[in-house]
Amino acid sequence: MNNFTFYSPTEFVFGRSTESKVGELCKKHGASRVLIVYGGGSVVRSGLLERVKKALAAAGIAFEEMGGVQPNPIDSKVREGIEIARKFKPDFLLPVGGGSVIDTAKAMAVGYYYEGDFWDFYAKKATAVKALPMGVVLTIPAAGSEGSGNSVITNTQSHVKVGIRYPMILRPKFAVMNPELTMTLPQWQTASGVSDMMAHILERYLSNTPDVQIGDRLAEGMLLAIMECAERVMDNPEDYEARANIMWSATVAHNDTCSIGREEDWNSHAMEHEISAEYDVTHGAGLAVIFPAFLQYGAKHNPHKIAQLGHRVFGIVDSGDESIDAMATAIALKTWFHEKLHLPVTFGQLGIPDPDLELLNERLHRLKGEVLQGYMELDATATMEIYKLAL
Amino acid sequence: MNNFTFYSPTEFVFGRSTESKVGELCKKHGASRVLIVYGGGSVVRSGLLERVKKALAAAGIAFEEMGGVQPNPIDSKVREGIEIARKFKPDFLLPVGGGSVIDTAKAMAVGYYYEGDFWDFYAKKATAVKALPMGVVLTIPAAGSEGSGNSVITNTQSHVKVGIRYPMILRPKFAVMNPELTMTLPQWQTASGVSDMMAHILERYLSNTPDVQIGDRLAEGMLLAIMECAERVMDNPEDYEARANIMWSATVAHNDTCSIGREEDWNSHAMEHEISAEYDVTHGAGLAVIFPAFLQYGAKHNPHKIAQLGHRVFGIVDSGDESIDAMATAIALKTWFHEKLHLPVTFGQLGIPDPDLELLNERLHRLKGEVLQGYMELDATATMEIYKLAL
Repeated sequence: MNNFTFYSPTEFVFGRSTESKVGELCKKHGASRVLIVYGGGSVVRSGLLERVKKALAAAGIAFEEMGGVQPNPIDSKVREGIEIARKFKPDFLLPVGGGSVIDTAKAMAVGYYYEGDFWDFYAKKATAVKALPMGVVLTIPAAGSEGSGNSVITNTQSHVKVGIRYPMILRPKFAVMNPELTMTLPQWQTASGVSDMMAHILERYLSNTPDVQIGDRLAEGMLLAIMECAERVMDNPEDYEARANIMWSATVAHNDTCSIGREEDWNSHAMEHEISAEYDVTHGAGLAVIFPAFLQYGAKHNPHKIAQLGHRVFGIVDSGDESIDAMATAIALKTWFHEKLHLPVTFGQLGIPDPDLELLNERLHRLKGEVLQGYMELDATATMEIYKLAL
Repeated sequence: MNNFTFYSPTEFVFGRSTESKVGELCKKHGASRVLIVYGGGSVVRSGLLERVKKALAAAGIAFEEMGGVQPNPIDSKVREGIEIARKFKPDFLLPVGGGSVIDTAKAMAVGYYYEGDFWDFYAKKATAVKALPMGVVLTIPAAGSEGSGNSVITNTQSHVKVGIRYPMILRPKFAVMNPELTMTLPQWQTASGVSDMMAHILERYLSNTPDVQIGDRLAEGMLLAIMECAERVMDNPEDYEARANIMWSATVAHNDTCSIGREEDWNSHAMEHEISAEYDVTHGAGLAVIFPAFLQYGAKHNPHKIAQLGHRVFGIVDSGDESIDAMATAIALKTWFHEKLHLPVTFGQLGIPDPDLELLNERLHRLKGEVLQGYMELDATATMEIYKLAL
């Protein structure tokens, strides 16, 4: 187990009707001028935005708002947000939505104090040392951004989709999480969220660091809980209990609970980011295509953890041959995504019958270097093989 | 799943040599005058106390110290500590030790600002609203106090051993956790710590709240990891990796990670507190005696979760009869404590061949009421039966 720091200071307020507390929570965390950030019309239509504003007003908090953040959030919206913020001068941000909205707010939070263009942080040309504090009202369990110090933004000019990670300054001060708000999510979005949170766990799980028993067992437990509850939600979207389990799992999947003391592997995420940056597909759906392919490749090249995953989570009987068991695990995950979550598991099913794999692969390595380090070393030939396994 | 708040803001700095960072960590968390609290001679003999002082001095922090905290920490020591603190006027406390030392510091932290006697908080006659902040250098993985808002103190006059719980003000600001510091712990203390952390998980696991899949699975995963690593440490006390897994598990066992959205049951802890308050035995060893008896009683009266525990953690094959499987689970835990951890599992083995069960039971119900609520309703007849099962 490697040395590590674990710091997850977010106050999570979870359960029915908890959004009514957002005013007092903002106040408690020092807010007096709040900039609300949100996405499309659903938070307006559902009345959630009105309820949030009412709670802020009741707490005597001044606020301004910026809507219109889109899925796969983009740089130009961040710049618009920073401009609005610089006029309004908030002391607190309040994203109301899912990962795209929160990630946009995080980009605004670091960009607000920076003289240059915020993208410098994402291009790793500058390091952020200060950020506007924020609270979150979460509506989509998937990205885990409500508990993480991460943010992923797409640059529409360069088609680069990359993340920043500042756990010490970007973790939200609080997150209000009401599973009732997720009961009207379309099946597609629910399923894509489940795929995303499972990938967040697996990117940590697939590690060559030895003796990370506690992280492994926590990860396996979370996957078992998510899969059981996801199947229930697919059958009955209004199953509050299953929704609640999934919502909390998405947070824990990404707040580093199962990262403890190990190297992680985010190459599947990087490979998917190229797909969603180019074809604007839903991130979680892209992951359902890439992840099983990644595991299939791993069955040949580094089967150990994949086989363990199969034995402990997917009920794969130990054959004594890790490669065989890892391949069975890859197929079990692919089958489960497709049959239980009704997610695409090939480029064709994703609506990209003829993907430009050369372009994706070239951009991937331009961004990440000649060889991607992680659970497996992946050069351009390897990643191309994985992309092709997803055809 | 019930509504809940999860708030674990402690910055955990984990791994080899991390105690060297204690000066900068104190500074970062706003300390300028630190009162160090410690226990017996081991932190002196090992040189740890010197290293801590050196780190504080290097960071330009003034400090004072109070040693001599004993296992099963007592009220008079807390009063002594508050007096020292009121003279020195620290802005930060720094317990260096295990749960007893940390719990004493927590009692001092709330008592410092209170005009009356600190015991009022433990007697539930007063509510603490303010506490001195603290950081922790942990040397014994067991109580989980480094990540919790809890403190347990024994009143030597009334023989009452009770806890307070203030997650919002008593969670340490940081915890330095170096598994190397635990490698010299005697086998007895290591084993008792393991029993304590497993009990912390099980007290949360044994709950009638339905649909807490994520908490259940996390709990089960932790138990599996702890048991594997505990066996390794029993064989080889200097197995750093296994020590590291155990140390982190003790923290997560008690920072509410697996409490999520459910009623908990702390009756086994309460029953043990009567034993250690009267006979001054090691808390974890007392739990190894009480817990299997508690589960045996549960096999008859509420077997569901105990059987699930057996199926998922102890490899008990599902017989279709939960009572039978729960009894098998109770015996499996008892056997494991005794054979693998070499812990006592009866009063006799604990060195109390003729315990005054009437006295323990009478005090228990005087403190906790006629019927203990929780996973099972326990009146005086029920708790007496459990005490007798531990003979």
